[in-house]
Amino acid sequence: MLDNILTFERDPEQYKHWKVAYEGATARIALDVREDGGLRPGYRLKLNSYDLGVDIELHDILQRIRFEHPEVRVIVLTSAKERVFCAGANINMLASSTHGWKVNFCKFTNETRNGLEDMSRNSGVRSIAAVNGACAGGGYEMALACDEILMVNDRSSTVSLPEVPLLGVLPGTGGLTRVTDKRKVRRDLADVFCTTSEGVRAERAKDWKLIDGHAPPAEFDALVKRRAEALAKTSDRPSGAKGVKLPPLDRKMDDTGYHYEYVDVTLDSAGRTATITVKAPAGDEPAEPAAIAAKGAAWYALKMTRELDDAILMLRVNNPAVGTILLETAGDARKALALGDVLIRHRGDWFVRETTNFLRRTLQRLDVSSRSLFAIIGKGSCFAGPLAELFLAADRSYMLDDTEDAANTPKIVLDETNFGLFAMNNGVSRIAAHFQGDEAALDKAKGRIGDALDAKAAKEIGLVTFTPDELDWDDEVRIAIEERASLSPDALTGMEASLRFGGEETMETKVFGRLTAWQNWIFIRPNAVGEQGALKLYGSGTKPSFNWERV
Amino acid sequence: MLDNILTFERDPEQYKHWKVAYEGATARIALDVREDGGLRPGYRLKLNSYDLGVDIELHDILQRIRFEHPEVRVIVLTSAKERVFCAGANINMLASSTHGWKVNFCKFTNETRNGLEDMSRNSGVRSIAAVNGACAGGGYEMALACDEILMVNDRSSTVSLPEVPLLGVLPGTGGLTRVTDKRKVRRDLADVFCTTSEGVRAERAKDWKLIDGHAPPAEFDALVKRRAEALAKTSDRPSGAKGVKLPPLDRKMDDTGYHYEYVDVTLDSAGRTATITVKAPAGDEPAEPAAIAAKGAAWYALKMTRELDDAILMLRVNNPAVGTILLETAGDARKALALGDVLIRHRGDWFVRETTNFLRRTLQRLDVSSRSLFAIIGKGSCFAGPLAELFLAADRSYMLDDTEDAANTPKIVLDETNFGLFAMNNGVSRIAAHFQGDEAALDKAKGRIGDALDAKAAKEIGLVTFTPDELDWDDEVRIAIEERASLSPDALTGMEASLRFGGEETMETKVFGRLTAWQNWIFIRPNAVGEQGALKLYGSGTKPSFNWERV
Repeated sequence: MLDNILTFERDPEQYKHWKVAYEGATARIALDVREDGGLRPGYRLKLNSYDLGVDIELHDILQRIRFEHPEVRVIVLTSAKERVFCAGANINMLASSTHGWKVNFCKFTNETRNGLEDMSRNSGVRSIAAVNGACAGGGYEMALACDEILMVNDRSSTVSLPEVPLLGVLPGTGGLTRVTDKRKVRRDLADVFCTTSEGVRAERAKDWKLIDGHAPPAEFDALVKRRAEALAKTSDRPSGAKGVKLPPLDRKMDDTGYHYEYVDVTLDSAGRTATITVKAPAGDEPAEPAAIAAKGAAWYALKMTRELDDAILMLRVNNPAVGTILLETAGDARKALALGDVLIRHRGDWFVRETTNFLRRTLQRLDVSSRSLFAIIGKGSCFAGPLAELFLAADRSYMLDDTEDAANTPKIVLDETNFGLFAMNNGVSRIAAHFQGDEAALDKAKGRIGDALDAKAAKEIGLVTFTPDELDWDDEVRIAIEERASLSPDALTGMEASLRFGGEETMETKVFGRLTAWQNWIFIRPNAVGEQGALKLYGSGTKPSFNWERV
Repeated sequence: MLDNILTFERDPEQYKHWKVAYEGATARIALDVREDGGLRPGYRLKLNSYDLGVDIELHDILQRIRFEHPEVRVIVLTSAKERVFCAGANINMLASSTHGWKVNFCKFTNETRNGLEDMSRNSGVRSIAAVNGACAGGGYEMALACDEILMVNDRSSTVSLPEVPLLGVLPGTGGLTRVTDKRKVRRDLADVFCTTSEGVRAERAKDWKLIDGHAPPAEFDALVKRRAEALAKTSDRPSGAKGVKLPPLDRKMDDTGYHYEYVDVTLDSAGRTATITVKAPAGDEPAEPAAIAAKGAAWYALKMTRELDDAILMLRVNNPAVGTILLETAGDARKALALGDVLIRHRGDWFVRETTNFLRRTLQRLDVSSRSLFAIIGKGSCFAGPLAELFLAADRSYMLDDTEDAANTPKIVLDETNFGLFAMNNGVSRIAAHFQGDEAALDKAKGRIGDALDAKAAKEIGLVTFTPDELDWDDEVRIAIEERASLSPDALTGMEASLRFGGEETMETKVFGRLTAWQNWIFIRPNAVGEQGALKLYGSGTKPSFNWERV
């Protein structure tokens, strides 16, 4: 399994595709794609087009701005190339990718785009897209994720979403949803915009709400600077704080899985399952901001989260046949609860806040990972406080009801962090989603905060699904896992996407639940990917040939 | 084109699959499917399973309850067979259908299910599913659309959604969304329920919120009767009103299209477009309830709506290659505005209300018809009042700016009906959706209610998209239609589904925008419909063979 493995860590010294400059409160990140620097062979990244590798670097940059650069209050996202901002996802890469690769690629870019907005909402880092040249498709979708879009008015540069007319697919990484829900572009103008391959120049783009402002080339830098300064003023990032350096991860890979200090992934290839075990801290962790800052990236909360995030991404791309993830925990519940206490008490501290935000995003990544999630709450487990989110993220849970050794039977403990700190993409806590908004059930659970709940108590208030005793435990869990593994992977993906996100929708859930679903469909239709399909034939000079039936 | 044409009208005297009995305020409709009565050859409708033909009859029954039976306050939906309520959509029918057929079939059943809920919300007709035997898949989805689900507790009958475990597809006609959003079934229990083929018996079904009540066989009828009486009391349907008989439609079909009194459909097969023209009433229509009731089904508002609804359905199933619908109107704006006035002034009258509800549902059907919609606002058009909804439903509009003959240039006129009476599936008016919730723009449009707006005025307040003059009109409209017709039908379907429904979601938009999108995807994946796919092999005794990659 160690060949051709894809990893998501990057060293800033070795970025291929981005130039990053820190100037006071501004991080200027400029796209400068190396044409021959694609993640796979077979395509050239022309015109600042991107593949997953380009986006992994962007993700790394944003993460370092969050943790290593607390002084940054505004990101200016621009291009280092002449006359082109970004041409979007590379078409030859897409055309030569498997369906699964395309979907995973879009999912990761969606998460990075959402992450930009999350930084503004929750970390006080604003962002400006400084569109200094042609901005097409995924390039415009990247700009759409910024708080403001400023554009050079050089009478030739345009913004465009040419996917429908040129490729027969959707602007699928948030484009359609952000045009309507975020930019509030009039519905008919959005229709014209999304069916026009030529794009829209600065003045009209402003009239149509596609951008926020523009300036002639000679005045563009000054406009961007002015807006960056204004946005920086709205930030609540700290003054004089010292950043926390993110060292390389301690990850060991072998045939059994991925191994980190606090997170372990064990693969069962035959059973097509993986077990993710998250451990509570072994020793005492710092409880006050100064000591936490001193510990930096070695602080349990950050280290564990980095490991969990990496494990999820590794499983997604490197182990597509793993359909079920078993979520386990280990350790001392008191340590996990102490962490929950720190996250609540010091939520005003920038580093604690960043770490909480990161854990929230990581759990959100798990929610949309298209894997069945079973929580296995056995002996020695530690589903307490922040770690309790892991059983709440599961599609179902099995909790051992050890009647023989009742004193040592597994317990789960809720704390305040479970009731809002780690909201899902739909803006509600995982426990509220579990109860589908049933307020009475939710209040009952809230009333048990801090109580160590054994299987009977947890079942009684509806927290866990099945509570076999020792006699039944092994067989019941094994059979459930085997049954799950026998089901159609596609049907499970669609079912879980629906059941996990009941009730209200947000822009984020619409991107994953509606836009992505339509794009997945279109991505396997012959009109896109058949031999005569638009995506396949793009750039060949041959016109696509469509089956004209509307479905 | 006249061979094998599918029509949606049914004669109650000739229902094949349903028994309908009217008893005071109750309509008892019992499913009694004729096994050999399938719409197409090649499958038998065993175990009260259904195909489109069964659902077309149900749709006809509901429509007649609305108009012909104003005395009905509660529907009891049950089975006339022993030990089986409904086994859902017929699997052999699904397995032998094209993708387009499956999607259209699910869309129509979704609309009928939504229609049941709409009857309760807007027409005062409550519904009870009296589940008197096995209730599986689409059978349970039909029950989910009722206000209450009552079930016989005979220790063997179950409710189930076995699509995922048995067929490798989703419960796709609202099942997943209604389990979470309507029934608020706990998320983990929903997961267990939707992956268990055996189903859940009465007691557990009640505990899990899957049903509302149950009774042993001997007491079941009494329970149903009691609940029907209780629900009937909550209805605001009229007392002593006389129903309006729905006669067969006046529809002529020929090679040029479908022709009715007030609606005309002209097909351009080469251009893959259809023009729907809706005419305003020619003479004076009644303005007071007594006269309207006397006119009955010949009343313009009802007759035109029946014709428009039929035209949309006919185009959907019989003309799948028609990708673009041109929406036109003709006649005297004063007549259309007079209708708007009647619909507002007499909204308390049951027949006016029913007709308004029907027009609202018909426009909603247009919104989800997976066709590009262009409004063509030319000379002699009548986009006024209720008929103005047709240009507001369009993805974009072309309005002639006749500068030569300014006195006779086309005009549009908004009235109060455009601001809420015909809400889309997302609960907002079409004009609010047009402006993506921009309150200032909406207020400006509201301020012009009653004004006859020429192209310049309409463009000025953002109501229409393009306003060519006489010189450009023909070419500009023609080229736009040709360009639209050249685009990938799949990409357009996904794009329009996203752009038409910006902002907030409802259960209905989630069914069409999220659940349907996932199901469409799964419906063409090899894991479902490949030679070794679960849907293809169901009932053959051979186990499906899956590609295990999770996407």
